[in-house]
Amino acid sequence: MSAISRSSDSFQLGVCYYPEHWNESLWEDDFRRMKELGFSIVRVAEFAWTIFEPEDGKFSFDLFDRALDEAHRHGLKVIMGTPTATPPAWLTERYPEALNARQDGVVYRHGQRRHYNYSSPVYRFYCERIVRKMSQHYGNHPAVAGWQIDNELNCETNEFYSDADHIAFRQWVRTKYGTLDKLNEAWGTVFWSQTYTDWQQVYLTRPNPSDSPNPHQLLDEKRFISDNTISFARLQADIIRESAPRQWVTTNGLFGHLDNHAMTSELLDFFSYDSYPQFSAFEDPENTSSLRDRKWSLSLSETRSISAHFCVMEQQSGPGGWVNRMDMPAPRPGQMRLWTYQSIAHGADMLLYFRWRTATMGTEIYWHGINDYHNRPNRRLHEVAQVGEELGRIGNLITGKSFQAQFAILEDYDNSWDAEFDAWVRPLRWKSKESWSKALQERHIPVDIVYMREGTKLEDLLRYPVLVYAHATILTENRAALLDAYVRGGGTLIMGARTGYKDERGQCRMIPFPGFAANWCGITVEDFTLCNPNFPAASAQWTDEDSALPTALFNEVLTVESETAEIMASYTSQYYSGGAALTRNRHGDGWSWYLGSAFTEEAVHGILDRMGTPSPADGWADLPKQVEIAIRGDIVFLLNYSHEPVRLNFLVQVNDLLRSGSLFGNIELEAYGVLVIQR
Amino acid sequence: MSAISRSSDSFQLGVCYYPEHWNESLWEDDFRRMKELGFSIVRVAEFAWTIFEPEDGKFSFDLFDRALDEAHRHGLKVIMGTPTATPPAWLTERYPEALNARQDGVVYRHGQRRHYNYSSPVYRFYCERIVRKMSQHYGNHPAVAGWQIDNELNCETNEFYSDADHIAFRQWVRTKYGTLDKLNEAWGTVFWSQTYTDWQQVYLTRPNPSDSPNPHQLLDEKRFISDNTISFARLQADIIRESAPRQWVTTNGLFGHLDNHAMTSELLDFFSYDSYPQFSAFEDPENTSSLRDRKWSLSLSETRSISAHFCVMEQQSGPGGWVNRMDMPAPRPGQMRLWTYQSIAHGADMLLYFRWRTATMGTEIYWHGINDYHNRPNRRLHEVAQVGEELGRIGNLITGKSFQAQFAILEDYDNSWDAEFDAWVRPLRWKSKESWSKALQERHIPVDIVYMREGTKLEDLLRYPVLVYAHATILTENRAALLDAYVRGGGTLIMGARTGYKDERGQCRMIPFPGFAANWCGITVEDFTLCNPNFPAASAQWTDEDSALPTALFNEVLTVESETAEIMASYTSQYYSGGAALTRNRHGDGWSWYLGSAFTEEAVHGILDRMGTPSPADGWADLPKQVEIAIRGDIVFLLNYSHEPVRLNFLVQVNDLLRSGSLFGNIELEAYGVLVIQR
Amino acid sequence: MSAISRSSDSFQLGVCYYPEHWNESLWEDDFRRMKELGFSIVRVAEFAWTIFEPEDGKFSFDLFDRALDEAHRHGLKVIMGTPTATPPAWLTERYPEALNARQDGVVYRHGQRRHYNYSSPVYRFYCERIVRKMSQHYGNHPAVAGWQIDNELNCETNEFYSDADHIAFRQWVRTKYGTLDKLNEAWGTVFWSQTYTDWQQVYLTRPNPSDSPNPHQLLDEKRFISDNTISFARLQADIIRESAPRQWVTTNGLFGHLDNHAMTSELLDFFSYDSYPQFSAFEDPENTSSLRDRKWSLSLSETRSISAHFCVMEQQSGPGGWVNRMDMPAPRPGQMRLWTYQSIAHGADMLLYFRWRTATMGTEIYWHGINDYHNRPNRRLHEVAQVGEELGRIGNLITGKSFQAQFAILEDYDNSWDAEFDAWVRPLRWKSKESWSKALQERHIPVDIVYMREGTKLEDLLRYPVLVYAHATILTENRAALLDAYVRGGGTLIMGARTGYKDERGQCRMIPFPGFAANWCGITVEDFTLCNPNFPAASAQWTDEDSALPTALFNEVLTVESETAEIMASYTSQYYSGGAALTRNRHGDGWSWYLGSAFTEEAVHGILDRMGTPSPADGWADLPKQVEIAIRGDIVFLLNYSHEPVRLNFLVQVNDLLRSGSLFGNIELEAYGVLVIQR
Repeated sequence: MSAISRSSDSFQLGVCYYPEHWNESLWEDDFRRMKELGFSIVRVAEFAWTIFEPEDGKFSFDLFDRALDEAHRHGLKVIMGTPTATPPAWLTERYPEALNARQDGVVYRHGQRRHYNYSSPVYRFYCERIVRKMSQHYGNHPAVAGWQIDNELNCETNEFYSDADHIAFRQWVRTKYGTLDKLNEAWGTVFWSQTYTDWQQVYLTRPNPSDSPNPHQLLDEKRFISDNTISFARLQADIIRESAPRQWVTTNGLFGHLDNHAMTSELLDFFSYDSYPQFSAFEDPENTSSLRDRKWSLSLSETRSISAHFCVMEQQSGPGGWVNRMDMPAPRPGQMRLWTYQSIAHGADMLLYFRWRTATMGTEIYWHGINDYHNRPNRRLHEVAQVGEELGRIGNLITGKSFQAQFAILEDYDNSWDAEFDAWVRPLRWKSKESWSKALQERHIPVDIVYMREGTKLEDLLRYPVLVYAHATILTENRAALLDAYVRGGGTLIMGARTGYKDERGQCRMIPFPGFAANWCGITVEDFTLCNPNFPAASAQWTDEDSALPTALFNEVLTVESETAEIMASYTSQYYSGGAALTRNRHGDGWSWYLGSAFTEEAVHGILDRMGTPSPADGWADLPKQVEIAIRGDIVFLLNYSHEPVRLNFLVQVNDLLRSGSLFGNIELEAYGVLVIQR
Repeated sequence: MSAISRSSDSFQLGVCYYPEHWNESLWEDDFRRMKELGFSIVRVAEFAWTIFEPEDGKFSFDLFDRALDEAHRHGLKVIMGTPTATPPAWLTERYPEALNARQDGVVYRHGQRRHYNYSSPVYRFYCERIVRKMSQHYGNHPAVAGWQIDNELNCETNEFYSDADHIAFRQWVRTKYGTLDKLNEAWGTVFWSQTYTDWQQVYLTRPNPSDSPNPHQLLDEKRFISDNTISFARLQADIIRESAPRQWVTTNGLFGHLDNHAMTSELLDFFSYDSYPQFSAFEDPENTSSLRDRKWSLSLSETRSISAHFCVMEQQSGPGGWVNRMDMPAPRPGQMRLWTYQSIAHGADMLLYFRWRTATMGTEIYWHGINDYHNRPNRRLHEVAQVGEELGRIGNLITGKSFQAQFAILEDYDNSWDAEFDAWVRPLRWKSKESWSKALQERHIPVDIVYMREGTKLEDLLRYPVLVYAHATILTENRAALLDAYVRGGGTLIMGARTGYKDERGQCRMIPFPGFAANWCGITVEDFTLCNPNFPAASAQWTDEDSALPTALFNEVLTVESETAEIMASYTSQYYSGGAALTRNRHGDGWSWYLGSAFTEEAVHGILDRMGTPSPADGWADLPKQVEIAIRGDIVFLLNYSHEPVRLNFLVQVNDLLRSGSLFGNIELEAYGVLVIQR
Repeated sequence: MSAISRSSDSFQLGVCYYPEHWNESLWEDDFRRMKELGFSIVRVAEFAWTIFEPEDGKFSFDLFDRALDEAHRHGLKVIMGTPTATPPAWLTERYPEALNARQDGVVYRHGQRRHYNYSSPVYRFYCERIVRKMSQHYGNHPAVAGWQIDNELNCETNEFYSDADHIAFRQWVRTKYGTLDKLNEAWGTVFWSQTYTDWQQVYLTRPNPSDSPNPHQLLDEKRFISDNTISFARLQADIIRESAPRQWVTTNGLFGHLDNHAMTSELLDFFSYDSYPQFSAFEDPENTSSLRDRKWSLSLSETRSISAHFCVMEQQSGPGGWVNRMDMPAPRPGQMRLWTYQSIAHGADMLLYFRWRTATMGTEIYWHGINDYHNRPNRRLHEVAQVGEELGRIGNLITGKSFQAQFAILEDYDNSWDAEFDAWVRPLRWKSKESWSKALQERHIPVDIVYMREGTKLEDLLRYPVLVYAHATILTENRAALLDAYVRGGGTLIMGARTGYKDERGQCRMIPFPGFAANWCGITVEDFTLCNPNFPAASAQWTDEDSALPTALFNEVLTVESETAEIMASYTSQYYSGGAALTRNRHGDGWSWYLGSAFTEEAVHGILDRMGTPSPADGWADLPKQVEIAIRGDIVFLLNYSHEPVRLNFLVQVNDLLRSGSLFGNIELEAYGVLVIQR
């Protein structure tokens, strides 16, 4: 049972609120109206360091004491944010060593947010002190339910190049490698005479001609950033645990160069996500392959892989935008409610809108809250009121129930970080992720994301009949053994081009592609090429029928090495016409598919057709493509992302929780409509 | 009577000349030929600091003494430029604190121009000294008519980040706000914990992650730059006034972050503009909505709003271009003459071509003068000779007469500077400016620009039956009162989306959109959205007929709040189909129009059709779209911007001044042709 | 007889090899297999400084001693690279003054390559010492054939802005100009008050607003970089000559801001080129005017202009790519062989593939060697084996024979460097180069490139019946005299727009366009314009027939000044319709063509048609457009760049060297096929 469920049986709906932004005369009305909307929880204080510590060492809790007492009087719980994402001017003016810097040495200065580094001892001292003061002060406050550490760690930038970071990195590699010989070997420094002969020569990547640093060093740099970020969060978590032992601890946001899984399992009670599906409004309108706001379902799946039950700390409550960028149109009527249920369907047990009322000043005057500047009723407020009413009725039926999926996408941090810099791999990952998520959505197959981690066990994989690990370029011996056991144990594993040729340092193995995966795939790669507009990816054809399988971005020509392997599709163009493009191998009790390309949507559908992968809707509901299905225990969510009504057909009678009735046969679901069904 | 008219009855035509660039043996021939072309005035010396002060404190006037005496012998008047836009190498090498810097700290160095800052005390010392020496030396020279301060203030860059600028800004905000509490309130520093507790913490905006500074601070930064630029100009103006009291003072160029109105009224005799319509050659050739070189008419209108009678200090005399950029094609035969009359038609009483002969060295070898490198006759010289001859005949009929317009576009510096950074407002301003200027041009309605300033009076507005103030996001109480009085007093005011929600700090008012303007518009905004390719602006339909009114970029849904207001057009698509898009309100003796969008050309035409706004050509001339009309007193200019001949029809007999005859009935005006008519 | 031919009668085929990258247990097998492939030469050591000098002043030759001995045992010769392109970490950490910097002052740091400057005395000390140690050690090694200085001088960046570079530049201009007056005159510093009054004020170009430095200073900056690069190479060459007098010296690569002709004639035995035709895979696939990989023939011609017989030190042996950029598809089967013969046909007498086996670590893991990471046979290895076998048979027939061309393109460094920055000239040069090389290829006319240099003599030009000097903006008196003599002596010279208006400083002459060229062209330019999408280049029409001659980018209207000149084509659009576009002049015994535009392909074909320029294939072979012809002595190379087979027709019987038979009549040449014929 998660910390969220422990703290409440009912669904906890709420909002982010900044009492320090508003005239105190508004507070009572604000809290009263929150309560009327069905809210039970409010996040505060995550950017309020100068309120708590207006001068170095001088602390003041008056403003938030009054605000929390008022919230408490209205029966609202409070999440306290630690304010370390926005150090006061007096701090960074006196200690510029606390600031982050660009790789070229330009130091970020006071005037925005997240301009500090995690490494500076002086900044760590000030952070520890403010967190200790706050947690000691509020550790027993009856309104306080829990804590959010910092805000959106590694948002704005996930690169750190201050002097303190260089020093901390040097210490980190020293701890990791022990000797310079081992570091030199890991970074392949014999290439281009990069060999280090003194620890003082070792830095984070630095400016260089052609902007192309050592790739192995860069991979370690990202691992360091993740470790360093976690260590910064740990400072705070440890203090809160000590001072406020009955309150839970989380942090929010899914940003780069951070192993959220490690951070959550080591430090947090649960993970929180900030969900803004309207960022999809910037997508290329010509991209017909896109799922737009449904892609946020994949991010929610990733969040769920961190915490099965999670909090959405910031749920979009209107158009977003900073003054100078990220200028989003308004969500259409129904979309805010749809996205709220999207979060809940994927595992949220607590959800707070961002924010109560649009800021009238600062960078985020266009990041709209539920209430407009004018504070009068508007359509967003009405839509939230509907959600509040509904969850008040049915929230307790949902909370604590687990998301159901028979299909999982494998992911891991090393490959994600390594591919960021790798022009041969990065586009394949993007393409295949898009193809898989779109095809699975359209076939109504719910999907989990599973991270390959140090502690991942065979049973974690065998829970899923099918796994996709599209382009696992880096494949360690341990993980290879695990995957081999998974297939032998009866699983079906699907892999794509560029699998398995790098080791954990990002260096290439001197064995044939796809490295250790050849073992269970039963093939090797005899020839390969990047594809581009001057060298278009070849078309291929299925072996079992006369239909095309388009490939994309990369073409590997496969050689069957095992008697149990069979060619499923072959290229029909380019110089390797006739060569094998897709194979399937019987390995132990399972199956292993290998595609020598990035996955196109057509390829995914073709594979799933042949695997006969079922949808949980099979047999009781006919759903159109526009509708996502998501299941938590006995609760089924049906979400219409289309701007038009769609028709569903229920083959059995089902129980409509929102409208408290039953449904059978042909049903119309309105544009952006939601059905919550109990079976 | 302006300083220009005071100095001469006839039109003063001339040229920019650099005696220091040429072998002295060429001077006599050059001045003689200028005189033959009908020139009476020559600008010199604005980049000649090292000629006047080759070493620190050692002054030399020989070269320019000889040049001015030669000019004087040929009966030419001279405008002296102060040379402060190009400090000598010895100065900036010894005092790098005089240099400007990028926001990231990179210092601009010697080798181009405008690389200095306005704040450094040492630079101000050197500028004062050279200006004093020059004005004392030439204050009584019989050839010298007046002075140009510096050259194109805030050209190349209008941002300043040297150490001296940070210090000067700190002093400026201290003077403006007095206390840190007031500064913190004005900049909304409680947002993201930006609160300042010591003046030493206050800087101009500085590097920050995501390149997104505090918007209120940035608005003040631009105000500071303007004030600082004016204060730099004042240093020089004061010295010239003292040393050369009988010579006038101007400066040239219409560049950013500078309140030219304040500068001109406080310091100058009149304002000067540099007109290069061939920059239009870089426009997207696919943009059919563009007016290309006719847009310069709007800049000339803005210049006229500063000085009713002005000087064009640099008029395009050939293709422009620096060695590495701004590479312009040649003006076609007739265009240089056309553009000259464009300047004159809009209020120029003095006009100098830039430049006499193309530079043979330096950055501007492709910024062509009248004469080519080879110094032999060419078509540009012949074209200028024609202009000289014509103005010799009719110039005195034009000079001193005032431009006539019944229609004005309102503008103000705060909105202009604030919108530069505001992604929600900037595109609307551009779109609406384009639509209004194009539609008014095509309907032959001359337009003034009126700046809302501290001293703007009701009568300044009531001079115009119609005013457009398209997107006055910032609307102070005083200006709102003035606009209200204007409408009540019988004026027609037209406003567009995003009006009135910000105060003078750029913070948002906690009242319904469009803020104080709701009073005279009789509406409020009930819903709104940015539009983009994924959320196309809705179409609308006129209430009074079955025709479309396309909207653009933003859609506000309007609620009629007053009995006197009526819906003129309603949306016909998007979720707000049926909602009001355009309204008109009877307010006192006037009318107020409000469009919940940026203005498309079709919207402007629809509004003007319904207002019945007349053209001054009505009743006596039928003009095609290609022709601009501009009127100064009894003189009418008809300018054909087309590359083809057009047909005009005069319904009454008019007096053709250039060809000294009369015109009636159908007339052909040649490509790029000009008619000057006396009525 | 070149140093290459001296060292061997047979063609020297080989490969680049990095023994330090591989486990020593692989060496024996590697060398044995090289020998089996027909290789005779191996390049090593050019990035191995830390192997040779792991600590400051501590030298170690063990690794390379063992490698060279092993190579020697297998009968392989070795080229030693000096390792100065990759200084050790200990060096740059201790002496950051050795590093290069961006113009804005950001210093490039350890971690990639080519991050040093050529000016720092301390870096020169360390380079001299390591080169002396290496050349003393290997100067008598029986396996060592010669030396490569550094690697790809001026690759990655050809700009240098470290403090040491500023100081060296100051010294260079002081030597060049002697007095500041002369420097001021040369740089036109009177423009914008740039005058220098102390040598300490003089720098390389520095940051400035609008990023637009003094163009004359910038031209000198590039000359300085070239001289400075050569002086850095000279340091090393002198030492090697002294320590290893029996071994030859070269360097590789054709990069910017370097007078390779001067460097080669002053320092080297011959020049080497690195040939990667697969960079053509990044070209715009829509560009139908492109020749893609055949363009490398022009670079090979340029290489041949430096050394008639040259080495290709790096020949593409697979897809190229750094981890994060330059991601190339695989060469198709046959292309590596085709490109090998392309190099040989153009004059290579020695050729090494880059590289033996793809690196498993570092930035170049995707710059593929002949062998894959897995080290097993692949199609690239088979293709190289075929080349090795063929050259083993016929190489000695080719080596030492000279390339035959009757047509040459003139080029010079001043114009190349000046045009880089000149937006009016740069596009013309690109366009005309593309048009000429494509049209000549399609007409099977082999072309030489001839550099106009200080020592160029009339007989160097008169070797060619036809010369093209498309846009010689800078034209000195000496070169004008030479060209005049060439035409008078019977040559045909073809020139294009913008010829001759600049002097050697990049300043413009005060005489009519095309400057001194008016003399032999018999025309002047009466009007001119840049063309762009808003001012399209005019069409023109041939005088002698009713067909169009499209112009491009620039239009000059020509006036015939000589009785011997005739108008060959006239404009038919724009305001200068009817004006002369193309002229031909009889001058002495020769002809001079002048086109007032950039050359389009159609213009080139039209001119060549009228000149009747023959192909060396005329009379004995009909060749399709897809096939390039190149001739060395009595050996004819026919290269099919197409992905499809083409048909050739031999009118006489020819001797097929590769297949050891004779050919007559219709013959099919396979895709990417090669014929080597002896006549």
